[in-house]
Amino acid sequence: MADYPPTVRELLAAMRELPSIGPRSAERLVLFLLEETKGTKERLARLLQAAGTRVHPCTRCGFYAEEELCELCRDPVRDPLLWCVVASPGDVLRIERASAFRGIYHVLGRKLSPLDGVGPEEIPTGLLLARIEREHPREIILALGTDAEGEATALYLGQILKKTGSRISSLATGLPAGGGLEFADSVTLSYALAGRREL
Amino acid sequence: MADYPPTVRELLAAMRELPSIGPRSAERLVLFLLEETKGTKERLARLLQAAGTRVHPCTRCGFYAEEELCELCRDPVRDPLLWCVVASPGDVLRIERASAFRGIYHVLGRKLSPLDGVGPEEIPTGLLLARIEREHPREIILALGTDAEGEATALYLGQILKKTGSRISSLATGLPAGGGLEFADSVTLSYALAGRREL
Repeated sequence: MADYPPTVRELLAAMRELPSIGPRSAERLVLFLLEETKGTKERLARLLQAAGTRVHPCTRCGFYAEEELCELCRDPVRDPLLWCVVASPGDVLRIERASAFRGIYHVLGRKLSPLDGVGPEEIPTGLLLARIEREHPREIILALGTDAEGEATALYLGQILKKTGSRISSLATGLPAGGGLEFADSVTLSYALAGRREL
Repeated sequence: MADYPPTVRELLAAMRELPSIGPRSAERLVLFLLEETKGTKERLARLLQAAGTRVHPCTRCGFYAEEELCELCRDPVRDPLLWCVVASPGDVLRIERASAFRGIYHVLGRKLSPLDGVGPEEIPTGLLLARIEREHPREIILALGTDAEGEATALYLGQILKKTGSRISSLATGLPAGGGLEFADSVTLSYALAGRREL
């Protein structure tokens, strides 16, 4: 059985390393790229190269930056004493898109996950504590998600951060917006009941 | 609202130009690439660049090649007088994977599509006729698909190729393998009836 030439086969293999790209998607993408003549191939190649060299973690908060500090840390309007601790750089923009937070961030980089061999000693608490020591935030909101890893990490961080003197809080759990009770699982419902608010 | 740094934003935009990659998929791919440290970014960049410079159409049949002739045209075991005319390079491998054809190919490059402004004069019949003139194939199988464009192109090519003296045939239409009648639409069923074979 014949196959594509070597470069095309290697490109297919590299595409299949991307998340949720199976053999069929990889082939569709590669055939599109081989046929297109608008320079998308060359532009993608250049930007992938640039992403590897120009984009790095912000030295203060760990979000993506091309200068020393990221756009968020350089923004003079944001409240520098209200922090939000998130697990990954992508989470920063998820919160930004809600347009409900005007503080700054701290990207932890990982969550506790004993099954994947990530124990407490792998969580970079030293960096976070040193930054708290320097900047003395008023409040630190833990936004690590409600999966087992996120909750364990929040519990662990909460114990450590209590000693810093900052107020430590965590995102509310409850019903997601825009759906009836039929869309909520029983764990979410029990959180929503326990966290009920007076009207 | 904050956003990713410029290089990341441009990379997201380039990813979104790929087929069936929406904003969410693009973000998942780009965040994966920014986090990975195994060199996938650099390898993809290099291979995209190489695909643009090293991969070109086989001068004989139009399939992808890195040398002058593609792997299929260089294979001495294949029957050089049995041809299969397909619309795109991807179709060559679709037929190869069926392991049922041992001839060689001719990639037409496009199908008749009046709605997209592709009329008969846009179909590169000159190249095909010149190749037939040189190589005198015994049989030419048209494998252009059963959509309106494929059938129109086969009808048009059939008329032109009849004069060449080669036997001209077309892939059978009928029930797809592995399904009951309930999975076949009525047009497919009518083709299957018209093309019924004696047992």
